[in-house]
Amino acid sequence: MPHNRQVLLARRPNGAPVAEDFELAQTDLPEPASGEMLLRTVYLSLDPYMRGRMNAEKSYADPVPVGGVMEGGTVSVVEKSNGGKFAEGDIVVGRAGWQDYMVSDGVSLSKVDPAAAPISTALGVLGMPGMTAYSGLLRLGKPKEGETVVVAAASGAVGANVGQIAKIKGCRAVGVAGGPEKCAFVVDELGFDACIDHQADDFEAQLAAACPDGIDIYFENVAGRVLEAVIPLFNFWARMPVCGLIAQYNMQDLPQGTNMLPALMRAVLTYRLRIEGFIVRDFADMRGDFQRDMGQWVRDGRVKYKEHRVAGMENAPATLIGLLKGENFGKVIIEVSDDPTR
Amino acid sequence: MPHNRQVLLARRPNGAPVAEDFELAQTDLPEPASGEMLLRTVYLSLDPYMRGRMNAEKSYADPVPVGGVMEGGTVSVVEKSNGGKFAEGDIVVGRAGWQDYMVSDGVSLSKVDPAAAPISTALGVLGMPGMTAYSGLLRLGKPKEGETVVVAAASGAVGANVGQIAKIKGCRAVGVAGGPEKCAFVVDELGFDACIDHQADDFEAQLAAACPDGIDIYFENVAGRVLEAVIPLFNFWARMPVCGLIAQYNMQDLPQGTNMLPALMRAVLTYRLRIEGFIVRDFADMRGDFQRDMGQWVRDGRVKYKEHRVAGMENAPATLIGLLKGENFGKVIIEVSDDPTR
Repeated sequence: MPHNRQVLLARRPNGAPVAEDFELAQTDLPEPASGEMLLRTVYLSLDPYMRGRMNAEKSYADPVPVGGVMEGGTVSVVEKSNGGKFAEGDIVVGRAGWQDYMVSDGVSLSKVDPAAAPISTALGVLGMPGMTAYSGLLRLGKPKEGETVVVAAASGAVGANVGQIAKIKGCRAVGVAGGPEKCAFVVDELGFDACIDHQADDFEAQLAAACPDGIDIYFENVAGRVLEAVIPLFNFWARMPVCGLIAQYNMQDLPQGTNMLPALMRAVLTYRLRIEGFIVRDFADMRGDFQRDMGQWVRDGRVKYKEHRVAGMENAPATLIGLLKGENFGKVIIEVSDDPTR
Repeated sequence: MPHNRQVLLARRPNGAPVAEDFELAQTDLPEPASGEMLLRTVYLSLDPYMRGRMNAEKSYADPVPVGGVMEGGTVSVVEKSNGGKFAEGDIVVGRAGWQDYMVSDGVSLSKVDPAAAPISTALGVLGMPGMTAYSGLLRLGKPKEGETVVVAAASGAVGANVGQIAKIKGCRAVGVAGGPEKCAFVVDELGFDACIDHQADDFEAQLAAACPDGIDIYFENVAGRVLEAVIPLFNFWARMPVCGLIAQYNMQDLPQGTNMLPALMRAVLTYRLRIEGFIVRDFADMRGDFQRDMGQWVRDGRVKYKEHRVAGMENAPATLIGLLKGENFGKVIIEVSDDPTR
């Protein structure tokens, strides 16, 4: 009889997470009550926001409690339905977290159509990261034809979609990524106009050269050195949707050195820059448009995606630790159990 | 026969302006051609934005050229009309700059009604600073009843109006000003709920105590220490219209020390803070509403104003130097020549 393996938050990280911040546990298989279903996790999504949930601080979502199951988006198969909302064998996307099984009453689950696309895309290009890129770029970035859009983490789950949607909207798309391999992929496979390696010594000069008409939209996933290089390049009326800040998630104390805040504020005032933070659920009203547009673009091959797959839930902690260092290449998916559709 | 005294930009300042950056010059009285008028400057407005025009850098307006007349808003009387748009004796508001006389074809001049309010208010509460406060707070701040609005430089030309309009809109208005005298005025005369002295050692703690429900709108006139104190207090969905940055206008190099940029970015992401720079002319469509509302509020005594008057155009350089150090108390007006309405 199978058990339910879980990854728990063992303690709050001190800066960058380490293996000891996580704990692998095992419980008995939960039993669905009437109206409930037993879900078996097939794929677990790992995403940068998870680092924030490991901290105790107030944020847009409650922290994971110490000893609690790590949160995360999942694609699952309905193993058993006790009169539940979905039938046995159905594929659903939801938030089962870092565990093999979960009992659910079906609230906040959505059915996934295996005929439309590989079911793992419900965690990537057709799921939360795709919707994040689509809604943040279109609602807050408001791209106009001919404008220049810069996006950091350009080979990542969100950034890859930001640049491809920007191209579809007639913009110049300039990516920033770590290392020549990712940069080549972003240009050659994803079709960005340029991609600059933020590890290069002359990164700032390369970025400026790749944006000869300045920057109209900077889609912020990263902060740190990339943001500092972007500040001098803003055009009048530039927009900066802020989606993530991966370069500072592990920061314990504010860094010492040059205070860049006055530089950003000067750009805000001089260029009427608009900076706006968001989370994907703020734009739930765009879900229908997203599903229609992105589904079509993926089917047409206009939007491509790359998955970084790792087998085994026991490898999720090390994979998240690596993701926060930029060691992944594409959307990170943990293969938790057999995919019944493959 | 009178001459035309002018204050020229003698050279670009190196940090804080000094007297030697200005030069008093004298020219012959200009003669209006057909369709033109000779204007005599009665009042000259001094405002913080003037510091930016003294620099060579690209901004939202062209710099004053070295050797050029310093720019500025003025209330003038039409001394002579050679078939011009306004009649002799009319009072007009425009941008004659730091000089006694100007010839104008009437474009970009507006007539001022001396019966409605003292004519100097066309440079203050009923002019550019009032319109800046009104449009920035209402259009970008979007105040809702019960929200907390914080404004720095709260006894100044813009800040005083921001807080008073916030009160009219049912908000809690918290000012920040330099020194106990200004703070007392802001609370006792202008009717703010609180005003904190940014020179106090425990300024940050006092500000937090004055905002028990957090900050929904921070109207930015200042930056520097005030902005840094505001960052931890933002509520979800807070707004930050950026109107001015007086604390950093004289900055030559970015300061060394703690880099506060990651702190601001974290607030942007966590609280979905929206930061937006603006200049008053962006909201020209609100002029009619402003004139109607603000005119009414001033007549009703719901909006009060305080002028800091200095006689003599020769004192304008020293007065601007002082304004940039916060030495003024109220809207700075230079009395250039006799006010024919008094």
